[in-house]
Amino acid sequence: MIDGAMLIGAELRQAEARFGSVDPSTGAALTPDFSSAGADAVADAASLAAAAFPAYSSTDPESRAAFLERIAEGILAIGDDLIVRAMAESGLPRARLEGERGRTVGQLRMFAGVVRQGDFFDATIDPALPDRAPLPRPDLRRVNLAVGPVAVFGASNFPLAFSVAGGDTASALAAGCPVIVKGHPAHPGTGELVARAIRTAVDASGLPAGVFSYLPGETNELGGALVSDPRIKAVGFTGSRGGGLALMRIAASRAEPIPVYAEMSSINPVILFPAALEARGDALADAYIGSLTMGAGQFCTNPGLVLGIDSPALDAFVARAGAALGACRSTTMLTPGIHAAYEKGVDALATHDAVRTVARGQKGDGENQAIGALFETDGRSFIADAALGHEVFGSSSVVVRCQDLQELTAVVAALEGQLTATLLLDPADEADAKALIPVLADRVGRILANGWPTGVEVSPAMVHGGPFPATSDGRTTSVGTLAIYRFLRPVCFQNLPASLLPDAISDANPWGVARRIDGKREGSPR
Amino acid sequence: MIDGAMLIGAELRQAEARFGSVDPSTGAALTPDFSSAGADAVADAASLAAAAFPAYSSTDPESRAAFLERIAEGILAIGDDLIVRAMAESGLPRARLEGERGRTVGQLRMFAGVVRQGDFFDATIDPALPDRAPLPRPDLRRVNLAVGPVAVFGASNFPLAFSVAGGDTASALAAGCPVIVKGHPAHPGTGELVARAIRTAVDASGLPAGVFSYLPGETNELGGALVSDPRIKAVGFTGSRGGGLALMRIAASRAEPIPVYAEMSSINPVILFPAALEARGDALADAYIGSLTMGAGQFCTNPGLVLGIDSPALDAFVARAGAALGACRSTTMLTPGIHAAYEKGVDALATHDAVRTVARGQKGDGENQAIGALFETDGRSFIADAALGHEVFGSSSVVVRCQDLQELTAVVAALEGQLTATLLLDPADEADAKALIPVLADRVGRILANGWPTGVEVSPAMVHGGPFPATSDGRTTSVGTLAIYRFLRPVCFQNLPASLLPDAISDANPWGVARRIDGKREGSPR
Repeated sequence: MIDGAMLIGAELRQAEARFGSVDPSTGAALTPDFSSAGADAVADAASLAAAAFPAYSSTDPESRAAFLERIAEGILAIGDDLIVRAMAESGLPRARLEGERGRTVGQLRMFAGVVRQGDFFDATIDPALPDRAPLPRPDLRRVNLAVGPVAVFGASNFPLAFSVAGGDTASALAAGCPVIVKGHPAHPGTGELVARAIRTAVDASGLPAGVFSYLPGETNELGGALVSDPRIKAVGFTGSRGGGLALMRIAASRAEPIPVYAEMSSINPVILFPAALEARGDALADAYIGSLTMGAGQFCTNPGLVLGIDSPALDAFVARAGAALGACRSTTMLTPGIHAAYEKGVDALATHDAVRTVARGQKGDGENQAIGALFETDGRSFIADAALGHEVFGSSSVVVRCQDLQELTAVVAALEGQLTATLLLDPADEADAKALIPVLADRVGRILANGWPTGVEVSPAMVHGGPFPATSDGRTTSVGTLAIYRFLRPVCFQNLPASLLPDAISDANPWGVARRIDGKREGSPR
Repeated sequence: MIDGAMLIGAELRQAEARFGSVDPSTGAALTPDFSSAGADAVADAASLAAAAFPAYSSTDPESRAAFLERIAEGILAIGDDLIVRAMAESGLPRARLEGERGRTVGQLRMFAGVVRQGDFFDATIDPALPDRAPLPRPDLRRVNLAVGPVAVFGASNFPLAFSVAGGDTASALAAGCPVIVKGHPAHPGTGELVARAIRTAVDASGLPAGVFSYLPGETNELGGALVSDPRIKAVGFTGSRGGGLALMRIAASRAEPIPVYAEMSSINPVILFPAALEARGDALADAYIGSLTMGAGQFCTNPGLVLGIDSPALDAFVARAGAALGACRSTTMLTPGIHAAYEKGVDALATHDAVRTVARGQKGDGENQAIGALFETDGRSFIADAALGHEVFGSSSVVVRCQDLQELTAVVAALEGQLTATLLLDPADEADAKALIPVLADRVGRILANGWPTGVEVSPAMVHGGPFPATSDGRTTSVGTLAIYRFLRPVCFQNLPASLLPDAISDANPWGVARRIDGKREGSPR
């Protein structure tokens, strides 16, 4: 059931201001229309979140984990209605959305496991040394606590996995933070279905209603009011560079500045090393175009930049990739706005003096089509014009022809921060690649070899982050178990009576949390 | 030997612009005068730091640890000259500075241990699952890498432990980051002696000279140029709120914003619970004044605020504390500027309509004396005027008389972020204290019981941090082993050939680093 309501804690409330949504594949309006949340709704949701914080942040791990699992079950219980609505609102195909639902549910369950396991507390105990000279050491115990209510801005390109119950929400709830989601206007019905599932899970778990609120809307004022609210203590965002920078500015100018975790823009350089290019250029070209056009190229890890060294093998690669792209039929983009931005970005490249259009794809059926675009430029031109390194969200990519490895290294060194870098290499290329690793590692969050960056595993070792402007905070990741640490802060307790210590650092250790004692992990010789 | 030079890597360079220093106890000028570093020196130091970064950040743990230990040995090797100079420049007594030297050296050695132990890498490996359906999992390995060159702003109140080779420098070097210290103008000779010891250790360790530079100066332009330089990737700062906020603004407005770890201001509330006050009010009052006046009150954890509930016992506590303070002879403050700010802050309280002056201390010998000041106000007045909660750096403190526990809780809830909160309580007070813990934990970095906040252990469980404005980033600490994480960022390596993997996450594990494999710590059942 979708009726366009805001969810302010347990309350379903309709706003007077409304907005509509469209099926991007047809341009047709969808029903119903939706509440466009305003500042009053933000204030009410923030007030409820602040009231819920003490109780929610002190839930025991088992209760909190069970809550996350109930959300996962609730999302599955929506059944096919969720998939059908998400297809209509996003233009994404069924298989992709079913897979994304699995990822979303898996992510919630993974964080349930993280919460039960308890390492996120980073429980650390320095026992008292009463006889130490010249001064005794007090009993010191450190534990990670939740930062407070968190605002989450859903992304358009993952209407399930990076939206209402996506990675930011799951990790913030796992940390013990109430969450207020600013619903993305591109998929308001999908968002409302998921928000209602979370609301039901809050209620079934006996938690205070303010643990979760959902504010659909399409105005900048809504986002601004949310990030400005003094009760909000951190922000998770996935979206455009402009949007992320605006939220960063608002957060930095608050009376109490707060962290914004914004995942913004990346062109994900792919480096073709000579031996690999020589040995398997055709296969690499085909795989490149497959990665570029998948999902209309609407991935933050889309391969938007390929670096190679001038050679006949590179000529053949470009020709093969161009032919492959030329045969690709376009698919529907997420929104008319994203499509318009894509067209604008492609036009800017196509009309750039230093850029050659290698190929365009075929137009498929329907509106808002991402017709693939492959361009070529040279290393010197790329370094000379920073605009050539700006993200064009969609299936557009630029091959940069470098004179030699030195120029290729200079191109890498000139890059802004990126989510990923990809090395396509054979054993004979490893020595060259080794010299490049430190330069790349300084600019990206993930380096991968002989694969494609589109495909982000949700696991402990994943980093979906990177130096600015890939994200606002290169010390973090928005995917994987490490994401929970964005919403925690350490607090030290010195000489506290046993009755006043948090459970995670009490002697009784009722949750069986692993601790570091006197600098050594329990059970470790170090 | 002190000659007022800047240390730009290995180069000793004199600037044309000069500044002098004074002995605050006499106001007499000290010799020599010192280079006032400018933008050209910043650019040269940053260039050297960037050049040194790849080699230094990839040093093996043993080499890096040995370097930190050489710095410690070098500081000790300066001998009494260091203590004598620091006494003259700071007005601090010999015993305090000898203790502080021990702390500084101990801190460097502690970080050498942290580096050798290797947990800071947070090495995490998700082995490939080639047979997983529907998609195989790639081999994923995550490791913490150094963020890049770091700018450190020394503090005046710890001319050794929070200055040139203090906690920020030690933790940044431990993380693998080159460091550029902006020397504090209050102790330039002390700073130069320590800087030369670091330079010698860089050379003896065979490291690139750009690993460390030292830029003395007294202009805001110097700090601004340093934080603005695009090669600087993080900032450590201990000092005033105004200074910290200025650096935060500069860092946030860079083309690439960077984190600033500023430890700025705190009044460190102390809560007197009724049973403890009744049972041992006299002893608490005496200890309070001891903590307040120690080191002229020039500690970030100085007890500037005491909260108690209106009662005859509180009357007696205030009277006793006033008498104790009235008998205290003042000591010299660090600089004329700090002394002037102290006098101004004390005057503002003394002339505030809602504040009663309980007692002033005795004037001791010499210039720039911190004559103790004890004030009293009531809960309602404190809540009504935020200015009463602003730090007065020095031996000034305000007792807030609350009507009941409810008003005391409201006072706590109205506080800004703090480094510490102290509970003075007996067993009969624990139930009341328990209700207050979540409110306090949300506002402070450290909660201590039945002690005094002045005294910060350097250890794994310590948190010397707290929500804004105590620090700019409440997710961190500037004291203790956790401080190293401020200067690290995670990078993931996916399917990389063995020859290209960083050592800490290679199969060979040459450094014997503890790793998390498939979500479980090696040797742990969880």
